Amino acid sequence: VRPPGPAFGVCDPPGGVCLLRGDEVLDLAGLGLEPFAGAAAAFAAPTLGPFMAAGREAWAATLDAVEGLRPEPFTRPAAEVAPRMPFAVGDYADFYASEHHAANLGRILRPGTEPLLPNWRHLPVGYHGRAGTVVPSGTPVVRPCGQYLDGDAPAFGPSRRLDVELELGFVIGTPSPHGRRVLVDEALEHVFGVVLLNDWSARDIQAWEYRPLGPFLGKSFATSISAWVTPLLALEGDRIALPPHEPPPLDYLREPPWALDLGLELELNGTVVSRPSARHLSWSPAQMVAHLTANGASLRTGDLLGSGTISGPAPGERGSLVELSWDGAEPLALGDGSTRSFLLDGDEVVMRGDGLAPVTGRILPAEGSAGAI
Amino acid sequence: VRPPGPAFGVCDPPGGVCLLRGDEVLDLAGLGLEPFAGAAAAFAAPTLGPFMAAGREAWAATLDAVEGLRPEPFTRPAAEVAPRMPFAVGDYADFYASEHHAANLGRILRPGTEPLLPNWRHLPVGYHGRAGTVVPSGTPVVRPCGQYLDGDAPAFGPSRRLDVELELGFVIGTPSPHGRRVLVDEALEHVFGVVLLNDWSARDIQAWEYRPLGPFLGKSFATSISAWVTPLLALEGDRIALPPHEPPPLDYLREPPWALDLGLELELNGTVVSRPSARHLSWSPAQMVAHLTANGASLRTGDLLGSGTISGPAPGERGSLVELSWDGAEPLALGDGSTRSFLLDGDEVVMRGDGLAPVTGRILPAEGSAGAI
Repeated sequence: VRPPGPAFGVCDPPGGVCLLRGDEVLDLAGLGLEPFAGAAAAFAAPTLGPFMAAGREAWAATLDAVEGLRPEPFTRPAAEVAPRMPFAVGDYADFYASEHHAANLGRILRPGTEPLLPNWRHLPVGYHGRAGTVVPSGTPVVRPCGQYLDGDAPAFGPSRRLDVELELGFVIGTPSPHGRRVLVDEALEHVFGVVLLNDWSARDIQAWEYRPLGPFLGKSFATSISAWVTPLLALEGDRIALPPHEPPPLDYLREPPWALDLGLELELNGTVVSRPSARHLSWSPAQMVAHLTANGASLRTGDLLGSGTISGPAPGERGSLVELSWDGAEPLALGDGSTRSFLLDGDEVVMRGDGLAPVTGRILPAEGSAGAI
Repeated sequence: VRPPGPAFGVCDPPGGVCLLRGDEVLDLAGLGLEPFAGAAAAFAAPTLGPFMAAGREAWAATLDAVEGLRPEPFTRPAAEVAPRMPFAVGDYADFYASEHHAANLGRILRPGTEPLLPNWRHLPVGYHGRAGTVVPSGTPVVRPCGQYLDGDAPAFGPSRRLDVELELGFVIGTPSPHGRRVLVDEALEHVFGVVLLNDWSARDIQAWEYRPLGPFLGKSFATSISAWVTPLLALEGDRIALPPHEPPPLDYLREPPWALDLGLELELNGTVVSRPSARHLSWSPAQMVAHLTANGASLRTGDLLGSGTISGPAPGERGSLVELSWDGAEPLALGDGSTRSFLLDGDEVVMRGDGLAPVTGRILPAEGSAGAI
């Protein structure tokens, strides 16, 4: 995949807003650039919030100002800085925008029925996740405990079906007022940038809890994102047109169909197990924003919109282990000779994507357990 | 119902933390009380956050310090102050803890099947709602637009089945670390207080969108809460023992069963249409906290846990219009001679509860419409 950046984050040293390009980090606060009014204060902040709230012209002016700029005293190797959580998450909404993923899960969970539910082609299906447990790349993930069915009886213990979901995350910059919807052709004014997102999932907990109100504790224990946010403006060259939606969406979701053609990688313990592309998202971030606000819900700076797991049509393009191992029927072979259907304690997951900062996470044993899984 | 208070909020004038008792407001910041270390700064804050984060001993010391205190220069009529949103909402999780409500919806939505789904008796079913659209009592609610089925075809427009849900909301004070669960017998250390909560619901949008990921835009347009938070410590006299859970819950949810015996009222355009009691919640706030954190999810100060709609066994004890009108089959008669199955533009909803501050809201016409509903 293409090296990350230009992407924005916050790290120590030097503190404040920095720019990642490949393996170099540029200290924007130290540099003293003023590409928009209020930039000095925004770049000195401990999160990307003020910069993201400054709006699309400020983002564009900043990208212009740093183009080609590599002043030695303000440039460091990326390996020498420790990025922090780049922004405070407002609300985290997660969609289900990859047709191959939705259809695979339908085939696995509801065999013998139509794989896609009737609403899927008409709206970007989604739900709210837990914002307080979104963590930056590198944060270890404790195996969750929870309630699941053991045969016919509910039991409580460490999840035995711990999975990953490879997604894009779209980060809201410009807020919108409560009670007013954002039109689909205005929506990208509000989207600052893109991260990789690992929507860790405990399939056993999820399967038992999710009727009728949807996923809850099977997801809420942790969601990992890239520590650097790549502006959508820096990915304009990656936009591709998609074939027309069938059926055509209702007016409030209608725009010329498009996606970001970003190559992605899912690596488990050093073996790349899947190579999806973000071109396999049927709903665009503009459509997600238009749908999310169609009822008058406001956007806040730092709202995070997950795309849902991204899977392509080929078996080697699936974005979750439950799909890659077909619910455990076809365990994956790793480079060390071991196999996996779901994650074991100590497993290390890395997700990469063209122009995006990686997201990594290692599984720690469940609370109170001694690494039995 | 019993008058509200003691309950804490933030209002102008005087700014800072105030105490509501019946129809009087006490200005804690002005008063200069120091019932715990850091109290002066906490009471001067523009939200309840610092006070709620100070912990249970600080809450108890404050209640002790104000007991019987009515110093004239710092006491005002409640009608003369304008309360603001009392705290910044972290995550908003909503449960489904009233058996009669869950069973009524099962009968309405899945006629001919077992009203309760198999997981309901084993865990407090819940999901995450949108924190950014939680508003204080008195905030008008714009009728949401959205996608719903019109006959067999999806359509977009103002919701025609706008409903209320009468709930309690439990507000988290003391945070908990990520990766460590809160045990059921420690859980109340974290719960600062209680509000009334109106989980406005667009039934037509919800019915079309909710499979398989749960409610989303049918709920996310607005959630109203009391502007004053009644400490759980002030409601200890309202605790009652419940009969044993059948089947007994798993260990992580096990405690002597209890509920708050708080009488509640739902009023529509001046007519009280329902009188449920919070005694009809089968899962306690302690069980909700233990379940929510069982997977290691953290609690943050300001997290809001909705109980789910509260309905009792009698027809006059139902907490939503879809139940009260039995999905429109039995419209409600109001005092002005009109009838309602769902809300019309201009309708005013008031919820009251023993010791709790009321939550009110009026329906404004949908964006771009001229009051056609």
